[in-house]
Amino acid sequence: MTGGDVLAPHLHAHAADFLRGLRLHAVSGPDGAGAEEAARALRAAARRIGAALATFRALLDTAWADRLRAELTWLSGTLGQEYACTAQLVRLAEALARLSGGRPPALPPPRSGGEALAMGAARAGALLDRKLTQARSRAHSAALQALGSARFHALADTVALLASEAPLSPAASASAATALGDPARLAERRLLDAVAALPTAPAVGGEQQDAPWHQVRLLLRLHRYAEELLGAGPVRYEAGGALDRHRDAAEAAATAAGAARTPRIAPATAYALGVLHADQRHEVAAARTAFRHAWERTVVTTG
Amino acid sequence: MTGGDVLAPHLHAHAADFLRGLRLHAVSGPDGAGAEEAARALRAAARRIGAALATFRALLDTAWADRLRAELTWLSGTLGQEYACTAQLVRLAEALARLSGGRPPALPPPRSGGEALAMGAARAGALLDRKLTQARSRAHSAALQALGSARFHALADTVALLASEAPLSPAASASAATALGDPARLAERRLLDAVAALPTAPAVGGEQQDAPWHQVRLLLRLHRYAEELLGAGPVRYEAGGALDRHRDAAEAAATAAGAARTPRIAPATAYALGVLHADQRHEVAAARTAFRHAWERTVVTTG
Repeated sequence: MTGGDVLAPHLHAHAADFLRGLRLHAVSGPDGAGAEEAARALRAAARRIGAALATFRALLDTAWADRLRAELTWLSGTLGQEYACTAQLVRLAEALARLSGGRPPALPPPRSGGEALAMGAARAGALLDRKLTQARSRAHSAALQALGSARFHALADTVALLASEAPLSPAASASAATALGDPARLAERRLLDAVAALPTAPAVGGEQQDAPWHQVRLLLRLHRYAEELLGAGPVRYEAGGALDRHRDAAEAAATAAGAARTPRIAPATAYALGVLHADQRHEVAAARTAFRHAWERTVVTTG
Repeated sequence: MTGGDVLAPHLHAHAADFLRGLRLHAVSGPDGAGAEEAARALRAAARRIGAALATFRALLDTAWADRLRAELTWLSGTLGQEYACTAQLVRLAEALARLSGGRPPALPPPRSGGEALAMGAARAGALLDRKLTQARSRAHSAALQALGSARFHALADTVALLASEAPLSPAASASAATALGDPARLAERRLLDAVAALPTAPAVGGEQQDAPWHQVRLLLRLHRYAEELLGAGPVRYEAGGALDRHRDAAEAAATAAGAARTPRIAPATAYALGVLHADQRHEVAAARTAFRHAWERTVVTTG
C-alpha cells in the first residue's frame, strides 16, 4: 500500500460527506429544520479535508492543496459564526443563571441603595442577548450570502472533483508507513513542542496569553485527524474537549468585556458584566487544568 | 487527676498570656511598634480562654463563665477589626494586581473606547483603598477606646484573678477522662454534624449560604482547642486554615460588592469591582475544596 492508497480514499470519503451536507442544505432551504445539521456536516467535512491537506501536503499537488485549504477555512469560519453566536448566548445565559443562585444574577443581597444593582444582572443579560442576537443575524446573512456566492460554487466544484480524484504528488507513491507516518509524526512533534511551551500565565488576568492555548487546540486537532487516518482509535479526545471548552469560555469572557464597553450603561450593568467576565475566565482556568490532567493521563498511557 | 486539675492550669496559663499582652500594649503605646503584636496576643489568649469556657462550661461557675466569655468575644471582635481591615486591603490589592497580569487590573486590552475601562481597575483599587483605610481608622479608634474603657478594666481584673484561680464547679472533681472527655466528644460531635450538614450550594452565586461554613469554622476551632487541652497534637490544622481563607475571601467579596454600591461611580469602576467580587467568590470555592480534601484526609487518618 502506498501513501496515496490511504490518503485518496480518505479525501474521497470526506468530500462525499461535504457534498451530502450541501444537498441536505439545498433540500432543507436556508431556514429549514435541516439547515443547521447541513452546516454542521459541511463544517465537519471541511475540517477533515483541510486537516489532511495541511498534514499530508507533500503527498499532494501543493498549490492546489493550499488553495483548497484556504477556501475550506473561509467556508468553515463563515458557517461557524452563526452557531458560535448561539452557543455563546446559551453559555452566558446559563452562567448568569448559575451566578444568580435563584436571585437576580450575581449580586449579593441589596443593602442600602442596592435596588439599582439588583437590576444590573438582568440588564446585563438583556444587553448580551441583544448584542449576540444581532451578531447571529449578521452571521446568518453572511452564511447565506457565502453559500450563494460564486466563490462557494467554485469550492463546491473542487470538492466534487475530489470525491472521485485526488491530485497526488509523486511522494504519495512511497509506502504508506513512510509517506503518511513521517508527516503524522511531524504533526505530533509540533503538538508536543507547543504543549511544552504553553505559558504558565494565570487564566484570570492573563487574557493576552491565550493564543498559545488556541494554537495547541488546532495542533491537537491536526494530530487527532492524522492518527484517525492512520487507523488509530479516538486520540486525546478528552484533551481536545477541554481545549474546545477553553476556547468557548475565552470567547464568552471577551464578549462580556466587550459588552461592558457599551457607552452609557449603568454601573450596575457593568458590575454584573465584570462578574460574568471573571466567571468565564475561571472557566478558562478550569479547562486548562482539565486539559493538563487529560494530557498527562494520555502521555502515561501511550508513553 | 480530676478535670479541674487539667482545666485550671490551662486557664491560668492563657490568662497569664492575656496579661502579658496587656503589659506589652501598655509599654508600646497605642501606635507603637509592639501594639499590633500586643493586640494579637490579647486576641489569641481571649480565644483560648473563651473556647475553654464554652466547651467545659459545666466544670465552671456557669454564670461567671458565660459573662466572661461574652466580654472576651466583645474584646476579640473589637481588637480584630483593625487587623481585618488591613488584611482585606492587602488581599484585595493583591487580587487586583494578580487579575491585572501586569496591565491595569482585570481588563482585557482596550478596543474602541476602552480607555475609560482601563481606568476602571485603578479607580476600583483607589476606591477600596479609601474605604478600607477609613474603616481601619474607625476600627483603630474603637480599639483604643475599648482598651481605655471601664468595661475593659473590669474584664482585665477578671482575667487577672483567673491567672491564679479558676471558679470550678463540683463537676470538675470527676476524673479528667470523664469531666473533660465527655464535653470534648460533644464538641467533636457538633462539628461532625455541622460538616455533614454543609450545603452543596455553589460558592459563586451562593453568597446567602455562607453562614453554615462560618459556623463550621467556629466549631472546628472549639474542637481543636479542646483536643489541644487534652494533649492531642495539632488537630485538623489544615482544614482550619482553609476555613480561615474561606472567611477572608467571603468578606473581601462582600467588600467589593459593597464598594460597587457607592453612588455615582463610573461603569468601568463597577465592572472592575464585579471582576474582583467574582474572583474572591472563586477563592471561596477553592477554600471549600481545600477544606473538603483536608477533612477527608483527617477522617481517614484518625479512622
